[in-house]
Amino acid sequence: MSRQLEPIARMVAQLSRLPSIGQKSAQRLAYHIIGLPLEEVRELAAAIYQGRKAIRYCDRCGNYATEQLCDICSDENRDGSQICVVRDPRDVAAIERMRDFDGLYHVLHGTLSPMEGIGPDDIRIQELLARLADGKVKEIIMATNPDIEGEATASYIARLVKPMGILITRIAHGVPVGSDLEYADEITLAKAMEGRRQM
Amino acid sequence: MSRQLEPIARMVAQLSRLPSIGQKSAQRLAYHIIGLPLEEVRELAAAIYQGRKAIRYCDRCGNYATEQLCDICSDENRDGSQICVVRDPRDVAAIERMRDFDGLYHVLHGTLSPMEGIGPDDIRIQELLARLADGKVKEIIMATNPDIEGEATASYIARLVKPMGILITRIAHGVPVGSDLEYADEITLAKAMEGRRQM
Repeated sequence: MSRQLEPIARMVAQLSRLPSIGQKSAQRLAYHIIGLPLEEVRELAAAIYQGRKAIRYCDRCGNYATEQLCDICSDENRDGSQICVVRDPRDVAAIERMRDFDGLYHVLHGTLSPMEGIGPDDIRIQELLARLADGKVKEIIMATNPDIEGEATASYIARLVKPMGILITRIAHGVPVGSDLEYADEITLAKAMEGRRQM
Repeated sequence: MSRQLEPIARMVAQLSRLPSIGQKSAQRLAYHIIGLPLEEVRELAAAIYQGRKAIRYCDRCGNYATEQLCDICSDENRDGSQICVVRDPRDVAAIERMRDFDGLYHVLHGTLSPMEGIGPDDIRIQELLARLADGKVKEIIMATNPDIEGEATASYIARLVKPMGILITRIAHGVPVGSDLEYADEITLAKAMEGRRQM
């Protein structure tokens, strides 16, 4: 009895490594792709690879960028006196969808987690402190997730920043506790931002 | 306010064209991919594009192949006296998973559908008749889907083949009526094959 052709098996194996795509879905997708015109598949593959390749981190804030500085850091109209601190670049995208915040961001690329051995030097805290040196930043809004790691990270940074005389606030728990910031709707995020309190 | 970066937007757009992947899932997948090491993304994109590019149709049966003939047609141990007729190459894969049939296949690449304007010349019926010319084929098993188009196609081919003195059988309706062959489990497919009757 014949097995699955190697190119199809390889495609299925690669697709099934993606999150929330099981073996059966990967098989469905692979057969769909095999049935597409070659040119369409070329566009799909190019969008994946070239897309990944084009993305780098912003030298200043750590957000996704295609140049040295991200779109937000290089936008003269953004308010440089506020920095919103988040865990992931996708959290920046979530807050931007709200269209209500016009300050800058700082992406930590992680949160403190003693359990997983992630300490202050493993996330971009030093880079945040360096941005405060010139005295232009008046407020830091901690928008890490409302979970244990997110709260611990917010408190840790608050302790470092307070002595510098900079206002440090935490987004309100409008965001349901235990959930992921990325999934919050725009209104919840706007409420959370509005109800932020000094730390 | 900034929009999504063009490379990410393009990746999301391409991913959301895939079946059962909506806008939100496409976004999740894109961010996951952006977070992967470049080398892993290269492997994913290559598996998709090179995989699609490597696949062609078997010159004889119309199944997926990497050479002129598919693995099954070029396997000397398969029984050339039986041809199982299916709609799609993925139906071949479904029947092969059953590991119970050792004849050959013929893939029609469609079924008759007057509603959609698909007539006998639009599917690989002539190619099937050509394979019967040398008199080696003793039985044709119609394994098109148990739906209106599948039944009509089976009947149409039966009318053409019967006068040639070849046994033509239909897989039993062990396959739930109205469903898709591709989703049948191995046992149901085995039962359907076993209970086939002369047409």
